[in-house]
Amino acid sequence: MDEQYMNRALALAKKGLGRTKTNPMVGAVLVKDGRIIAEGYHHGFGMDHAEVDCLKQVEESPKGGTMYVTLEPCSHYGKTPPCVVAIEKAGIARVVVGTLDPNPKVAGRGVGALKAAGIQVDVGVLEEACQSLNRAFFTSIRTQTPYVICKFATTIDGKIATDSGESQWITSEAARDDGHKLRGVVDGILVGTNTVIKDNPRLSNRSGEGPDPTRIILDRRGAVDLEANVYDGTQPTIVYTVHMEEAKMKALKERGVVVEVVKEKKGKLDLRAVLKDLYAKDMGRILVEGGGRLHGSLIDEDLVDEFALYLAPTLFGGGKDAVAGRAIASLSERRDFAFDEVKMLGPDLFIGGVRRCLRES
Amino acid sequence: MDEQYMNRALALAKKGLGRTKTNPMVGAVLVKDGRIIAEGYHHGFGMDHAEVDCLKQVEESPKGGTMYVTLEPCSHYGKTPPCVVAIEKAGIARVVVGTLDPNPKVAGRGVGALKAAGIQVDVGVLEEACQSLNRAFFTSIRTQTPYVICKFATTIDGKIATDSGESQWITSEAARDDGHKLRGVVDGILVGTNTVIKDNPRLSNRSGEGPDPTRIILDRRGAVDLEANVYDGTQPTIVYTVHMEEAKMKALKERGVVVEVVKEKKGKLDLRAVLKDLYAKDMGRILVEGGGRLHGSLIDEDLVDEFALYLAPTLFGGGKDAVAGRAIASLSERRDFAFDEVKMLGPDLFIGGVRRCLRES
Repeated sequence: MDEQYMNRALALAKKGLGRTKTNPMVGAVLVKDGRIIAEGYHHGFGMDHAEVDCLKQVEESPKGGTMYVTLEPCSHYGKTPPCVVAIEKAGIARVVVGTLDPNPKVAGRGVGALKAAGIQVDVGVLEEACQSLNRAFFTSIRTQTPYVICKFATTIDGKIATDSGESQWITSEAARDDGHKLRGVVDGILVGTNTVIKDNPRLSNRSGEGPDPTRIILDRRGAVDLEANVYDGTQPTIVYTVHMEEAKMKALKERGVVVEVVKEKKGKLDLRAVLKDLYAKDMGRILVEGGGRLHGSLIDEDLVDEFALYLAPTLFGGGKDAVAGRAIASLSERRDFAFDEVKMLGPDLFIGGVRRCLRES
Repeated sequence: MDEQYMNRALALAKKGLGRTKTNPMVGAVLVKDGRIIAEGYHHGFGMDHAEVDCLKQVEESPKGGTMYVTLEPCSHYGKTPPCVVAIEKAGIARVVVGTLDPNPKVAGRGVGALKAAGIQVDVGVLEEACQSLNRAFFTSIRTQTPYVICKFATTIDGKIATDSGESQWITSEAARDDGHKLRGVVDGILVGTNTVIKDNPRLSNRSGEGPDPTRIILDRRGAVDLEANVYDGTQPTIVYTVHMEEAKMKALKERGVVVEVVKEKKGKLDLRAVLKDLYAKDMGRILVEGGGRLHGSLIDEDLVDEFALYLAPTLFGGGKDAVAGRAIASLSERRDFAFDEVKMLGPDLFIGGVRRCLRES
């Protein structure tokens, strides 16, 4: 029965996808006398935690009940009071926890506090699923950078455009629609200068699901035109630059675009500095949409946590690389992932993969 | 019922995989009084056709029976007498044909001859499956070149080696074992000079299934060393060259290696001439195992019928391209395929694809 209720809590947790920013997705189910008397989840960043949301739905006394929660309840004062206090006050007799919280501010202390209050605690029900759900949170809380998902649409031979730069479209409408759904479940979309100049994308979420993500533009030398679609002021926008004309900077700020000046590292924007800043701006998950050099730089720096490959059944025989980095020097440095999803989208394949080991920094 | 018997005939046909060379795979089932009284298939190049093989198995009178055959029976004298004659002699009352034979020597004449003999003929049962089974035959009979399958083991970013040339191994043992099975169902393996020099492969079939394929080496300038594994004389071997020292040619011939001198085309071996010659040597299906430049040249010349992609969940960020051709000039020239098989092999993915339209020349 524990697994059944935890599965329900997992399903509830997933409702928060794309809205919890640097917080985890969490679901909670309250069971009494063999039936569910309340359910809750973390609806979004800054809102009630799942446990509190759940307790607010209760229409009878929760006293003596069992709470199933996908992640260890918090024991610290953050944006909301600690959940362990709410659980104790409600007179819950037993708490079943999916997985411990790796957040150094929690990390077992939540379970400790519950036990100290005389509550029975069981940890590790559907642990793998509960950890997998929050891969992004588990990574970002440790690295203090957003979880990075590289998305590319390539040919069988790994190309994203012909030599002349033609790229619209390599994949089918079905694949592109799916790509828009991805945009609805991240906090920001990161693109490089060349992609903005060449494709003039809007970086909007046209899937009809989820919010529009923040546009994140890398423009080291301030080369992107003020009239570019990404600067139209219709979505939250941040641009990272090393050198940008004062006048352009001013014009951008007037449109509500956030301009951040960062330092250079080996002739490139310091990508780690950018990611640290994005995390400080509460971004927990970002999608990288090219071009090849940006993907390459992220791979070179070992900053990619997940890839989303839309593979078209076509061959160019050559052309522009999806990933154009300095490249690894030897096989032992390869960036290893594990395939975790494969599906057909019209004539194309979607292939998702996650890092084999969570990123440490 | 017709479909059920045709399905059985298809299963029988597949037993000939890898052994029929430029002939099609064909299966036949003889039904009388609602039960199968004999089964047959084309066991291999130069052997009995399926219809004759089936009739040879009959232990009672086939008179008045119905024969299910995946491909139109032949009406011409080739290596064996025409099947229509055998069918007529046996007193078969009805023939159910999967698909017509595109061979210009047959192409409806087989069905015509059966009808002229007063036999009831029905064409088109499981037609798509019967055509798909013999994609290679249907292509090669028209182009008079072998059906070309390009095999590569790549990273997510389309690389087959690091810049320094390290490539062993990108994919897992499970994937490499599967690759050996592919070797067992083709007539030859084609490789370029660089692959032989760099990897010194044996090109043997270590799967334990099917015969060893013929090694086909492209060595325009005769640069491959006599001591290379491919020249060890343990498998049938053909080398195509433009310039090769007399002494080397002689030494190779003494070891049983067939040396063919072909002309150059734009500074490269004339690939179409090579393929024509291979077909004349009864090769119906060949596997191309690199390197990138050979795959690229074949794509450039639009000579690829199928690809077998072993995709490892890893990224290099750069390195050597799986397909390094001149590349298409515009998107309209893309070589379009359709994915027809996707499977996990350990941590890797196998992705198979076939040309969207059969090759014409």
